[in-house]
Amino acid sequence: MQLPVRSALLLLLLLRARGLRAGERSSSAMEEIATEKEAEESHRQDSVSLLTFILLLTLTILTIWLFKHRRVRFLHETGLAMIYGLIVGVILRYGSPSSSGHDKPFSCSQEDRPFMTLLVNVSGKFFEYTLKGEISPGKIHNVEQNDMLRKVTFDPEVFFNILLPPIIFHAGYSLKKRHFFRNLGSILAYAFLGTAVSCFIIGNLMYGVVKLMKLVGQLSDKFYYTDCLLFGAVISATDPVTVLAIFNELHADVDLYALLFGESVLNDAVAIVLSSSIVAYQPTGENTHAFDAAAFFKSVGVFLGIFSGSFMMGAVTGVVTALVTKFTKLHCFPLLETALFFLMSWSTFLLAEACGFTGVVAVLFCGITQAHYTYNNLSVESRSRTKQLFEVLHFLAENFIFSYMGLALFTFQKHIFSPVFIIGAFIAIFLGRAAHIYPLSFFLNLGRRHKISWNFQHMMMFSGLRGAMAFALAIRDTATYSHQMMFSTTLLIVFFTVWIIGGGTTPMLSWLNIRVGDHAPSVEEINESRWLYFRVGVDPDQDPPPSNDSFQVLQGDGPDSERGNRTKQESAWLFRLWYSFDHNYLKPILTHSGPPLTTTLPSCCGLLARCLTTPQVYDNQEQLREEDSDFILNDGDLTLTYGDTTITANGSSGSRTATTSLEGRKTKSSSEEALEHELGMGDHEVTSRGTRLVFPLEDNA
Amino acid sequence: MQLPVRSALLLLLLLRARGLRAGERSSSAMEEIATEKEAEESHRQDSVSLLTFILLLTLTILTIWLFKHRRVRFLHETGLAMIYGLIVGVILRYGSPSSSGHDKPFSCSQEDRPFMTLLVNVSGKFFEYTLKGEISPGKIHNVEQNDMLRKVTFDPEVFFNILLPPIIFHAGYSLKKRHFFRNLGSILAYAFLGTAVSCFIIGNLMYGVVKLMKLVGQLSDKFYYTDCLLFGAVISATDPVTVLAIFNELHADVDLYALLFGESVLNDAVAIVLSSSIVAYQPTGENTHAFDAAAFFKSVGVFLGIFSGSFMMGAVTGVVTALVTKFTKLHCFPLLETALFFLMSWSTFLLAEACGFTGVVAVLFCGITQAHYTYNNLSVESRSRTKQLFEVLHFLAENFIFSYMGLALFTFQKHIFSPVFIIGAFIAIFLGRAAHIYPLSFFLNLGRRHKISWNFQHMMMFSGLRGAMAFALAIRDTATYSHQMMFSTTLLIVFFTVWIIGGGTTPMLSWLNIRVGDHAPSVEEINESRWLYFRVGVDPDQDPPPSNDSFQVLQGDGPDSERGNRTKQESAWLFRLWYSFDHNYLKPILTHSGPPLTTTLPSCCGLLARCLTTPQVYDNQEQLREEDSDFILNDGDLTLTYGDTTITANGSSGSRTATTSLEGRKTKSSSEEALEHELGMGDHEVTSRGTRLVFPLEDNA
Repeated sequence: MQLPVRSALLLLLLLRARGLRAGERSSSAMEEIATEKEAEESHRQDSVSLLTFILLLTLTILTIWLFKHRRVRFLHETGLAMIYGLIVGVILRYGSPSSSGHDKPFSCSQEDRPFMTLLVNVSGKFFEYTLKGEISPGKIHNVEQNDMLRKVTFDPEVFFNILLPPIIFHAGYSLKKRHFFRNLGSILAYAFLGTAVSCFIIGNLMYGVVKLMKLVGQLSDKFYYTDCLLFGAVISATDPVTVLAIFNELHADVDLYALLFGESVLNDAVAIVLSSSIVAYQPTGENTHAFDAAAFFKSVGVFLGIFSGSFMMGAVTGVVTALVTKFTKLHCFPLLETALFFLMSWSTFLLAEACGFTGVVAVLFCGITQAHYTYNNLSVESRSRTKQLFEVLHFLAENFIFSYMGLALFTFQKHIFSPVFIIGAFIAIFLGRAAHIYPLSFFLNLGRRHKISWNFQHMMMFSGLRGAMAFALAIRDTATYSHQMMFSTTLLIVFFTVWIIGGGTTPMLSWLNIRVGDHAPSVEEINESRWLYFRVGVDPDQDPPPSNDSFQVLQGDGPDSERGNRTKQESAWLFRLWYSFDHNYLKPILTHSGPPLTTTLPSCCGLLARCLTTPQVYDNQEQLREEDSDFILNDGDLTLTYGDTTITANGSSGSRTATTSLEGRKTKSSSEEALEHELGMGDHEVTSRGTRLVFPLEDNA
Repeated sequence: MQLPVRSALLLLLLLRARGLRAGERSSSAMEEIATEKEAEESHRQDSVSLLTFILLLTLTILTIWLFKHRRVRFLHETGLAMIYGLIVGVILRYGSPSSSGHDKPFSCSQEDRPFMTLLVNVSGKFFEYTLKGEISPGKIHNVEQNDMLRKVTFDPEVFFNILLPPIIFHAGYSLKKRHFFRNLGSILAYAFLGTAVSCFIIGNLMYGVVKLMKLVGQLSDKFYYTDCLLFGAVISATDPVTVLAIFNELHADVDLYALLFGESVLNDAVAIVLSSSIVAYQPTGENTHAFDAAAFFKSVGVFLGIFSGSFMMGAVTGVVTALVTKFTKLHCFPLLETALFFLMSWSTFLLAEACGFTGVVAVLFCGITQAHYTYNNLSVESRSRTKQLFEVLHFLAENFIFSYMGLALFTFQKHIFSPVFIIGAFIAIFLGRAAHIYPLSFFLNLGRRHKISWNFQHMMMFSGLRGAMAFALAIRDTATYSHQMMFSTTLLIVFFTVWIIGGGTTPMLSWLNIRVGDHAPSVEEINESRWLYFRVGVDPDQDPPPSNDSFQVLQGDGPDSERGNRTKQESAWLFRLWYSFDHNYLKPILTHSGPPLTTTLPSCCGLLARCLTTPQVYDNQEQLREEDSDFILNDGDLTLTYGDTTITANGSSGSRTATTSLEGRKTKSSSEEALEHELGMGDHEVTSRGTRLVFPLEDNA
């Protein structure tokens, strides 16, 4: 029974140990000096343990550099961090003295329920104690553990409240990718339906495994059906980290990248909320672990409630930040702007936690909103500042989690490794992933014009890495036997997937004949960032010049742009509805781009529209809006653009490919609806506009 | 009796409250739900209280923008943060319900000394408690306080372990100012001697005040001489924050700026170590608060030990970072480089704490070392990244402390305001500052060629603001009556100095006829950053083109450059010794700049020298080393440069002023020593080199 909001420590308690507060000076000195020396010793140990982690990270950074320098690809940096963590874990486990004596527990009986604060009278002086947690009766003797091992063991809530938020926010903030929005329908299906399917299949399979273990006599304590389902939820969260890094380096296919990245980002959110809902599933009455319809629907309600609530929180703070940055001239002071951005994004987390929603999920949607709206209002310096700030935070947090994982394999005190359960879990994950990818892809392909090919499906099947989120969810509650077994198994699964699958991505890609960027032109090396953008859809600097896309066209990559057009229609109705609303109302209200509200709002709202429209918008109408990297959603006032495009496309005489592509489009457009045509035009505008900009590049080639 | 290393929480415990860990699922549900709801409620309150601070900061940022936008100068941003803090403090104090019932303390007697961990048996279940601290018998009933007030009360160690390090590191990292090193002797004198003098005078005066209070009957508890001395140390730390900001905006005199900024930065370090030493002053025997020579010398030993130890720690990690960044090609990956820089700088703090030194002081010297050596090895992107990262951290931490100060005036539960003590303290501060500035300036002027004028002395006297450091030192121990009174008084002094003196800086500067940058050329507005650099000595982007200095020369600012030359001689022997060692050995070993070691080291160390010299150094010898902003210390290989300079200066035909200045120098140089001449040449090289670069600017003017 663990709600995500349960923990009382917020940002804060990294180490479990906690020292003595200042004693009264008037009391007898000897005793005090002893206590103080103990506290000092404890503080020193805290410093040493944090220092250990910092040295671990430093070592990891240096090795990452060496690997990048030598272009080693068989081991990813996160895998490396885990290996170093493992080594240090072994040293701490077997190298340090087993126990120190001064931490003796004391028992005193009391008849009431536990209090948060306890006052203890020790030879006339009063000491204040705070409740740390309950200890199961069998483990009382384990309390007296190795000191150093205790020091390096963090409170699980640290992962949720300190380390995950920057990782997840960064994922959301760097999500401003056209291909993500084009594949939105499929991504949502994979993330929501897929995770639910995977969770149920893994849960049921594991229940079978548990039943088997009971028969064989391998199970020494209780293991309920809800525990199995929880394990399914925990292990269903695929990790964007490694996928992102490897695909980024290899310049793999854009659509595949968008599908995998989008799925794994939303996945995390779904998995958190799903596990909370499963924890909230508490049948009433005597038979507490049988199926109960009321409790089930309550859980579903909890899922929907938490998810939509967190989504709302994230969106609202994002929108508020966008409004603040739009209507103040804060962009003259990048430091203030960056600080505000950071604080507002952090407040999302706290607000969601304060309201009983899930902070991490709220932070994800806040990141997406910030990238989509606020980013456009920021000054150029603040854009790079915020990006770099969260990049560093994300990098540190991520590598910290992975090295902690390595460490935890040896320093965690309550591991339960059950071979049957572990083998069962590996099989269940494989089957769960298969049952999630292939049927869903089949149904999605029914609706998609650009089908998800078998190769892509195999690759998605293969890329189901588990990482930081699965670990954080599993370590959150390790109080019971079943949870400890789940945690140990999750740890092994993360190790396996990161090392084996992470390392095998490159061979797998080539084996499946998935285009990687090896037929790149020679300009590639020079314009690596541009190339990355148009090939992978990852814009490394988030703000590429519009020429990138036309560059693609000028390469004569005809089939590619055709494919792009088809892909775009894929999630047509949902996408179009959202697009026109976003383009006509949200963008103009929240940013300086888009058509002026005075033209899109009905005339009755004229006054409001004038208030909300800044002078920049009218300026932007005239000039090319080059600062938007998110072409599909930002570009082209639908009616104005059309005229603009035709003029530009015909006006620029040398753009053979662009004109061809336009002609090809015209012949097709008779069969399309008007809106679809207009949407295509938005893309064309980019093409033709870029053509002018890119000429010098063509001349050089 | 509080050593700086005493606290057991490290980075971490922001809020005092701490929730329940997961209960056993198998135990009775009702009780558990109640406990869990309590924990949930507590977590929510934590979120709300942190949210309060974030909203406070957001509000402060928006108002700062408004003030900057409207060019309001009578109230500094830190003063603003305090006002908002005050308002929220009043609301929390009088607006929230006075107490909530569920936090009842429980007493149980025990005959031994207190343990760190306590196991409590509550109706068959075991709960683990950790020691929070001792409570004086008179305050047992105060434990049950207003919940919200408790939530917004941070552990004092938070200030030392989380908030001060980024502030102090940033101060050190932005200290790369030529005028700082030129005035090094005076700055060291003000910081060390001055702080000690001020501490003793304030301490003795306050002891007089305390005696008086005892006579009058205003004192209700003990107040020892060591307490008075501690108060002197706490309140002697002047704050760089406000001085920096106001002088930065006003473009006030460079030397005055360097003296004030340098003093207040080193001041902080001295004050921390001084207060630790006073706390360590513990006379043995019965009469525990009389003078004891052995204990006194022990305290002096502690002071020297902690200070030099912390200095060493900071310097060592800085040097290690410099070596790592020099000998790896990490600069190809700015993210890795920035992360490494951040981690190494943080590890200084932990290392110092782990070794029993003072982390904050170590961090200061680490910052200075990083700026002086490592900064030169970083890639251009990493330079701006690290600078911006620490700038944001510093900004947030600083405004947080100041708003917390405002809040603490109302939410802190143990204020003791004694009018006599407060008035006495104000007078003592004034006298202490006067006894510190005027005599010391008199003695320094005996040695200085460029005297510290009366106006400057008055301004330094006036600028003794107290800020974050005084607050952090005072809040560190508020266990006894005397410390509580000291804390309340410190708070009022900070309020007064920040509001009144901070606001009065501008009028005071003009009243004392101290040059502010109002005779700036019209180019000023355009090149504000450049202008700032050459006028104030603050290079806002730390990496200005060398043209800045020559720009000054081209303005015909003859007396200024003459004065600069004279100032430079001021701390001649110390400076020159350090300069030649740094230039010939340290810079070449730790960075890519300076003369190759093969030329400076004796021939017996030839192999070593070749190993330590990177190819870039030889390249740098040929080309102009433009990337170094720190001209005096970096520029000009003494022999090579001389030839280079004369050629350049004569080669550039149009540089009237530069040539004049060179001529002026030549006439004078006969009376100077050889080394001094060479030092001057370093400066000239810049001048003449810059002349070429600056021509277009002159043409425009």
